[in-house]
Amino acid sequence: MVTIAIDAMGGDFGPRVTIPSVLSALEKLPDLNILLYGHRAKLDAYLHQGTASSRLEIIHTDQQVGAGEKVSAALRKRESSMRMALDAVRDERAQGMVSAGNTGALVAVARYVLKTLLGIDRPALIARLPNIRGHSYMLDLGANVESNSENLYQFALMGDAFARVMGVKGAPKVALLNIGSEELKGNEDIRLANATLKESELLNYVGYVEGDDIYKGVVDVIVTNGYSGNIALKTSEGLIRYVTQVIRQSFSKNLFTRLLGLLAMPILERARQAFEPELKNSAVLLGVQGIVVKSHGKSQQDAFLKAIESAYVLAKNDLLDQISDQLDQEII
Amino acid sequence: MVTIAIDAMGGDFGPRVTIPSVLSALEKLPDLNILLYGHRAKLDAYLHQGTASSRLEIIHTDQQVGAGEKVSAALRKRESSMRMALDAVRDERAQGMVSAGNTGALVAVARYVLKTLLGIDRPALIARLPNIRGHSYMLDLGANVESNSENLYQFALMGDAFARVMGVKGAPKVALLNIGSEELKGNEDIRLANATLKESELLNYVGYVEGDDIYKGVVDVIVTNGYSGNIALKTSEGLIRYVTQVIRQSFSKNLFTRLLGLLAMPILERARQAFEPELKNSAVLLGVQGIVVKSHGKSQQDAFLKAIESAYVLAKNDLLDQISDQLDQEII
Repeated sequence: MVTIAIDAMGGDFGPRVTIPSVLSALEKLPDLNILLYGHRAKLDAYLHQGTASSRLEIIHTDQQVGAGEKVSAALRKRESSMRMALDAVRDERAQGMVSAGNTGALVAVARYVLKTLLGIDRPALIARLPNIRGHSYMLDLGANVESNSENLYQFALMGDAFARVMGVKGAPKVALLNIGSEELKGNEDIRLANATLKESELLNYVGYVEGDDIYKGVVDVIVTNGYSGNIALKTSEGLIRYVTQVIRQSFSKNLFTRLLGLLAMPILERARQAFEPELKNSAVLLGVQGIVVKSHGKSQQDAFLKAIESAYVLAKNDLLDQISDQLDQEII
Repeated sequence: MVTIAIDAMGGDFGPRVTIPSVLSALEKLPDLNILLYGHRAKLDAYLHQGTASSRLEIIHTDQQVGAGEKVSAALRKRESSMRMALDAVRDERAQGMVSAGNTGALVAVARYVLKTLLGIDRPALIARLPNIRGHSYMLDLGANVESNSENLYQFALMGDAFARVMGVKGAPKVALLNIGSEELKGNEDIRLANATLKESELLNYVGYVEGDDIYKGVVDVIVTNGYSGNIALKTSEGLIRYVTQVIRQSFSKNLFTRLLGLLAMPILERARQAFEPELKNSAVLLGVQGIVVKSHGKSQQDAFLKAIESAYVLAKNDLLDQISDQLDQEII
């Protein structure tokens, strides 16, 4: 059995999205246990009759972390649904947790409750991004606002370990995101990280890539600071939405294009489904002593279900241990 | 007459792209004069017979700035085609210049030759980005690798002035790009810039936007540091290329989809043409005492022609003076 703790109150939609996702996950995965943290009365509204599963335990709490809440305030709420789900991981009552709550708060509370892995100063958010040849992994997607060269180096080690554990064949190609492929570009932190990574014999470091390389599939792991990583990811999300709108409009011009659109849209929709949901995928908070999955704040049921499944798969395969082992080899 | 100086040697393709673009521009714009700087023999290969125009003056020089050349080396080349084109602007022999050369070198040499505008410490690259409602302007797209709060504030002033001059109606809505809409997010420089902008009565400052807002058309001017701006732009470029490939593939599955593709592709291509070229558009180096247009290093003929036209339009409408006037009102 795998037990996952869920912050039922997080995200823009709270229990309206988290509860149906939890129920789907329980139905889909017979060896999944859920510890559900949230306000009982608010959860009950979405727990229809007959959902009393022996694999679902509901733990009531009044407190929750708000979307715009300051990190310092979130850290003081010892009984927030987010905090209690993280406590369950620390106390080994759960093998992983999922929250769609405020990113800044989740990172800070997770770091406070779970502590970082040996040799890691700062955790980082990593996610799988689609590209024309398959997938790559990018970190940090926003766990930190600033990162020095040492942080970036540690992100590279964690990203490499994660990619190996997720099944990338051979030594993952690791790259630093920069604004020019020439050595002379980039700020001091990036240049220093580049120098350290070049010297490292542990990694298959291939140098700099630029923003337009992200979707080319030329590397397996893309390392950047949380500010730029978040902007790259969110810009992508927004651009896909815009392109979808432009395409819809272009098929609505006249009767002929509308008819053509009726036939072409299912194909285009399938094309979009091939990558668009991945851009809104959950991210894993790498570098803390526990499996923490951050679901997108705007997650709908499908996306939150996927986040639960991610935590389940990571827990079931002891991926955290594997990552720690990998890091132990690398950090001597 | 409007005279534009051209660095014929810059960009990934050099004269092969710059010369045909110059010839098209001369044909298209009867009151355009061109001063063309580059290696005579290399230019001649693309200047076919009968192109002897009284409006085209070729100035030979052996020196050119390489794509990977260090800024310090570029600054020492006093007779590079890039430098000589900038000298022509400084000496008022030309009203603007265009280069597709190395961004870092162009920014440094332009700043050295032309000096910055009064009250501006650092120039910034600005470009027009398409969105579902029209257009917005984003800066800095990579003139600088790091920017402090004062630089960001100045970028906001310049972006506002540029947007007004480019015809945005009313007081342009100005926003700072950040990784969260809550006050607590972002680094120190961004938070400080936010505080300064909020106090400013000169600007219609609307606060933070995130990456996914760029293509929503909710604001007119998006201010960010050059590192993040460049990554947002290049990520967009790469994502469009990827999406185009995915769509093509999805129409190549079977005979039916291929036939459908034959009909749908022209519509999709028109949709793509509506915004994709804009993402590869030229950028204007704002903040120096002269009109400097940076064309994309990978520019083909069409894109370089557009860059020449941009410089021409900016020069013809005395936009630099208008921007200076606007800044003079703002910087007291």
